[in-house]
Amino acid sequence: MSEFNVAIIGATGAVGREMVKILEEREFPIKDLVLLASKRSLGETISFKKKALKVQELNTNSFKDIDIALFSAGSAVSMKFAPIAAKNGTIVIDNSSAFRMDSHVPLVVPEVNADDVKKHKGIIANPNCSTIQMVVALKPVLDEVGINRIIVSTYQAVSGTGKAAIDELEEQSSQILNNKKLTRKVYPHQIAFNILPHIDKFEINGYTKEEMKLIHETKKIFGNNKIKITATAVRVPVFYGHSESIYLETQKHISIKKLKNIYLKTNGIKLVDDIANYKYPLATMSEIYDDVMIGRLRKDLSESNGINMWIVANNLRKGAALNAVQIAELLI
Amino acid sequence: MSEFNVAIIGATGAVGREMVKILEEREFPIKDLVLLASKRSLGETISFKKKALKVQELNTNSFKDIDIALFSAGSAVSMKFAPIAAKNGTIVIDNSSAFRMDSHVPLVVPEVNADDVKKHKGIIANPNCSTIQMVVALKPVLDEVGINRIIVSTYQAVSGTGKAAIDELEEQSSQILNNKKLTRKVYPHQIAFNILPHIDKFEINGYTKEEMKLIHETKKIFGNNKIKITATAVRVPVFYGHSESIYLETQKHISIKKLKNIYLKTNGIKLVDDIANYKYPLATMSEIYDDVMIGRLRKDLSESNGINMWIVANNLRKGAALNAVQIAELLI
Repeated sequence: MSEFNVAIIGATGAVGREMVKILEEREFPIKDLVLLASKRSLGETISFKKKALKVQELNTNSFKDIDIALFSAGSAVSMKFAPIAAKNGTIVIDNSSAFRMDSHVPLVVPEVNADDVKKHKGIIANPNCSTIQMVVALKPVLDEVGINRIIVSTYQAVSGTGKAAIDELEEQSSQILNNKKLTRKVYPHQIAFNILPHIDKFEINGYTKEEMKLIHETKKIFGNNKIKITATAVRVPVFYGHSESIYLETQKHISIKKLKNIYLKTNGIKLVDDIANYKYPLATMSEIYDDVMIGRLRKDLSESNGINMWIVANNLRKGAALNAVQIAELLI
Repeated sequence: MSEFNVAIIGATGAVGREMVKILEEREFPIKDLVLLASKRSLGETISFKKKALKVQELNTNSFKDIDIALFSAGSAVSMKFAPIAAKNGTIVIDNSSAFRMDSHVPLVVPEVNADDVKKHKGIIANPNCSTIQMVVALKPVLDEVGINRIIVSTYQAVSGTGKAAIDELEEQSSQILNNKKLTRKVYPHQIAFNILPHIDKFEINGYTKEEMKLIHETKKIFGNNKIKITATAVRVPVFYGHSESIYLETQKHISIKKLKNIYLKTNGIKLVDDIANYKYPLATMSEIYDDVMIGRLRKDLSESNGINMWIVANNLRKGAALNAVQIAELLI
């Protein structure tokens, strides 16, 4: 079996570090792993297969001999360096939103639309965290009975914003518990013991970018522009694990029993639905399981083809780093 | 103006204490205020108008000379003592779920269905916290253009469970921040830095009682059994203030601009909707404002008569104690 030279761009970030871990866990066939970041991170080392790898500065010559580059350093870095890498013959898997809606760039969740990878012209986009877990949960429904309507409200962890936000939730929680003055750097309002109906920038239509990503990316990944989607994206004081409350209307009727049987057989999904024993997906479980967890499955009481569910996934792993590595696995 | 003898049953609880405060704040015309609780609370005193009132033990003779009794000591206490009080000629305003769906008992939110108070036969029920804020927010829409459909996902504070839950969130948060062993008494799972899609008991249909309350109580208060309602009730690690993500479909079209103008003129509602300046309702604001706060108002992008909004209210005050006192004000 051949081995590949892989680069991680943004290796010192929350998602970048997960990428390194996941490449090791899944025994990705690596010849050389190159860790790239901005000048700021020079001198840092990250452990990979018991070796301490030095972080190197990203520049236009970084992609010589690199087969696959996993980008997770924000849209600006991707816009500048991903085309350079692709021109060099490197296949880019980009975790930023820079190219997701580009019609020449496939947007891939391996459990949902693995075949789209083949259409790439050097760049493949990794979807947004809140989108990935929703499309994994809904793809089996779409295939079985079709979907007319999705209404989702999210409960998203601060790690989706990055390391500084994790620190902010920790610091503010401690400040409030100890009656100290509150400090604030990352979010526009207190996040500890509070709920912010605001993720990413606001667009002119009154929705946030995060909400519009859920709408546009889901349609692109499903290859279906007719599904009606409504999204409300909300930040909650949780470190890891995004939760989503989903209502959907199917085209044809499906019983909850049948849906559960389908989920039990679906790769990438863990059914956690035993309310008699208080078992349902929890954000804290996402630190243990990589699968998208589904529970609280119930027929809607007012729409005959309506179904409600509660889904949770690890936003840094399945929502970002793991999905990117799974895309890389499709390439080899 | 005449004055009234008022009793508070469950005076030492989180809601009972708010009732005492609100009676004082709103200068309710009180002759005597009698604070009642179980034996456990004997010896406690609560301050009212600069006097320390002793808590007395609730018994079947407690209602002699009492004009109005505010109950907030759970369903079992209400079931036993509310009929005794009513038979005595005392008007009961009951904050438990014991009589809410009883067809002989009006279920009242003064901003919505004040006239229903007149139908009482001794007992008036105070709705559930998550219902009250939703019906206050939606009544102006119902009156103006009619409502076909409501889909709500909640983000509910632990104070709704009571004092022990407030302590549990505080203790667990501190334990996690300090790497100590987690203790758990109130909730079936860790609530600190976690999200629980589970409030109150599960019913046979897979919904929780809290979700069914939102459905049944809303229909009763609106006097409209045709509205289709879907609810997902979720506990979040917040001390005070329930948030709700609401999608609704109106019967006739209404513009967001017109709806905002209506809300600006509606008593009991505070419009907090200026996304350019990051202003939207927050749980933390509910410690300052008694009004139901409404924001993130936006047209649905997939349904022509669809509207999305984010609402927040103080669950102990407008969601319980304040609404009960407002009902009492309707009686005098």
